Amino acid sequence: MQSSSARSGKGGRGELAIIRHIRSQAGHSNSRAVRLGIGDDCALLRPRAGQELAVTTDLTIAGTHFRMDWHAPESAGHRALARGLSDLAAMGAVPVAAFLSLGLPRELAHPKGRWETSWAARFLDGLLALARAHKTPLAGGDLSETPVLLADIVLIGSLPAGKALLRSSARAGDLLYVTGVLGGGAASLPFLDRLAKAGSGGQMGLNLRRIPKNLGPLLERHLWPQPRLAQGIRLRGQGLASAAIDLSDGLSTDLTHLCEESRVAAEIDPALLPVHPGANLDYALHGGDDYELLFTAPANVHMPRKIAGVAITRIGRILPARSDQAAVTILTPRGPQPLKPRGWEHFSETSQG
Amino acid sequence: MQSSSARSGKGGRGELAIIRHIRSQAGHSNSRAVRLGIGDDCALLRPRAGQELAVTTDLTIAGTHFRMDWHAPESAGHRALARGLSDLAAMGAVPVAAFLSLGLPRELAHPKGRWETSWAARFLDGLLALARAHKTPLAGGDLSETPVLLADIVLIGSLPAGKALLRSSARAGDLLYVTGVLGGGAASLPFLDRLAKAGSGGQMGLNLRRIPKNLGPLLERHLWPQPRLAQGIRLRGQGLASAAIDLSDGLSTDLTHLCEESRVAAEIDPALLPVHPGANLDYALHGGDDYELLFTAPANVHMPRKIAGVAITRIGRILPARSDQAAVTILTPRGPQPLKPRGWEHFSETSQG
Repeated sequence: MQSSSARSGKGGRGELAIIRHIRSQAGHSNSRAVRLGIGDDCALLRPRAGQELAVTTDLTIAGTHFRMDWHAPESAGHRALARGLSDLAAMGAVPVAAFLSLGLPRELAHPKGRWETSWAARFLDGLLALARAHKTPLAGGDLSETPVLLADIVLIGSLPAGKALLRSSARAGDLLYVTGVLGGGAASLPFLDRLAKAGSGGQMGLNLRRIPKNLGPLLERHLWPQPRLAQGIRLRGQGLASAAIDLSDGLSTDLTHLCEESRVAAEIDPALLPVHPGANLDYALHGGDDYELLFTAPANVHMPRKIAGVAITRIGRILPARSDQAAVTILTPRGPQPLKPRGWEHFSETSQG
Repeated sequence: MQSSSARSGKGGRGELAIIRHIRSQAGHSNSRAVRLGIGDDCALLRPRAGQELAVTTDLTIAGTHFRMDWHAPESAGHRALARGLSDLAAMGAVPVAAFLSLGLPRELAHPKGRWETSWAARFLDGLLALARAHKTPLAGGDLSETPVLLADIVLIGSLPAGKALLRSSARAGDLLYVTGVLGGGAASLPFLDRLAKAGSGGQMGLNLRRIPKNLGPLLERHLWPQPRLAQGIRLRGQGLASAAIDLSDGLSTDLTHLCEESRVAAEIDPALLPVHPGANLDYALHGGDDYELLFTAPANVHMPRKIAGVAITRIGRILPARSDQAAVTILTPRGPQPLKPRGWEHFSETSQG
């Protein structure tokens, strides 16, 4: 965390005070991998011999990745970190350290009330609670004043050299699996929209106490996604998976990436898809924000039905690439049909983001 | 670099096309440290045995860290990367890889003309040219649509375990040094302001061909800062320095940080300060953006006058901390006077950023 000193003799909660708060909450690593955390020009990491480091960065922007009137600040912070942890999970990496570059509008850092109840402090609370749950110390970052809230999360993980789960190593004949259930993240969106329009949403997001109880489990999928770290680490450690990617943009889009990087094709059997209660096939195929793992394994691997309490479901198979055919097909009564990627893309002419 | 697939059948330069462009320009590492770059959930780094990794993140925001009407896009990109490389230099680290989380307003990514002449492409050109000069491959990142341009740069460097130059290891009796000359970065600002108001500045920054020749060397300090990597690596490798920090926020502010982290005091002799031609003592003491190194060394170290072509100048000394006295003092005809940190701080009540 870069710090700039408060101007002497001036009051107010300046950059240094915010950094001091973050530093006091940042936690310490259980591992000895973090040699030096917040407070110098750089953090210092000392990987164990024979280990590789996995590095990922994820931008979270208010209005694009979350909405102030939908998401409580704690949920926005949780989701920002969950995106990066999910990338580590997809490689089978163990989290070592997180870095946070935070851009704050002045009004979120200078609340009228106490700092502890400010939007920014509550965002950090949500982020750091998930970090603690996964023993991931916050080892550094940067802080700036910005017109809209933004958070760039960097996550660094560790794994034995040469053993990472890649997108590029699926082979024809492999079977295709997912963890957990699909579609819940995206199926929440119309409900969140309706609740916000009905007046439950304010500057601090929806009042979760006023959400109808039957909607709780569905909305929880969206508001508090759980990165599948234990599952990814076991799939890598026991040599169960041949390739993996996390489902952040939607199954049709992320499976297309995996096929492109592996130069293979894939076929999904929709009857096998584990659809979240309250979602439907369309959400399961194209909705993003599920943060489950999509992975492949050779057909002769004995796959457990559950890993660390989360169901593992076979949903299709990997085929040789054919230049005249879509990378991903889906079984229908009329035979296999192309499944075009319909997940999120920034800057496309049709996206409104 | 996370990628989301272009929607099939739609035209336009989408996220995937931008990422493809970045990937083609990203370069390859000369070292074997980067095992996997852009294209998977994470990049993979394999540090050499006995090495530690230094990690730093730096946010660059349009309007705060640069101005569209002052800085050519290439200069903004150069400066974004230079900030991070300067942090590595201050630790004595050798760059291994860079990561870029880029937020782009739609109009900067979808120009009316060709992509190659767009603001975004020219920003990347400037950033990647400096990366190539320091053999630093771009190994990943993220891309999002944002209301203002922002770039979070992550830099990872390598150095022998336990040998990093820290802020916290200066000792009373050490001498205080800087690389290069001071004040040029900040002394440029009034000239840039005047030129922009005189109509030389547009959406692509000031037209550098129309800048008066005598101003060139001064403005160059601001527009194209050179991170002192060779100097930091030599100071660390030859055991010349006891502590170091880079001068990004201004000498008075950064020296205060060094004193706080080392629990010492410091005394500056203004007669010794190497002031940039066109700057003055005030700019040299409090102006930021110089990206020189400030470092300490025991008095018995024979310090070279130059390292890799850049002058090394003694500017003062380290004293024991005294609770009744400012951390930093400056010699005057009336004796030592307190020197308060007057560099930049976000969110302070007086800052207007």
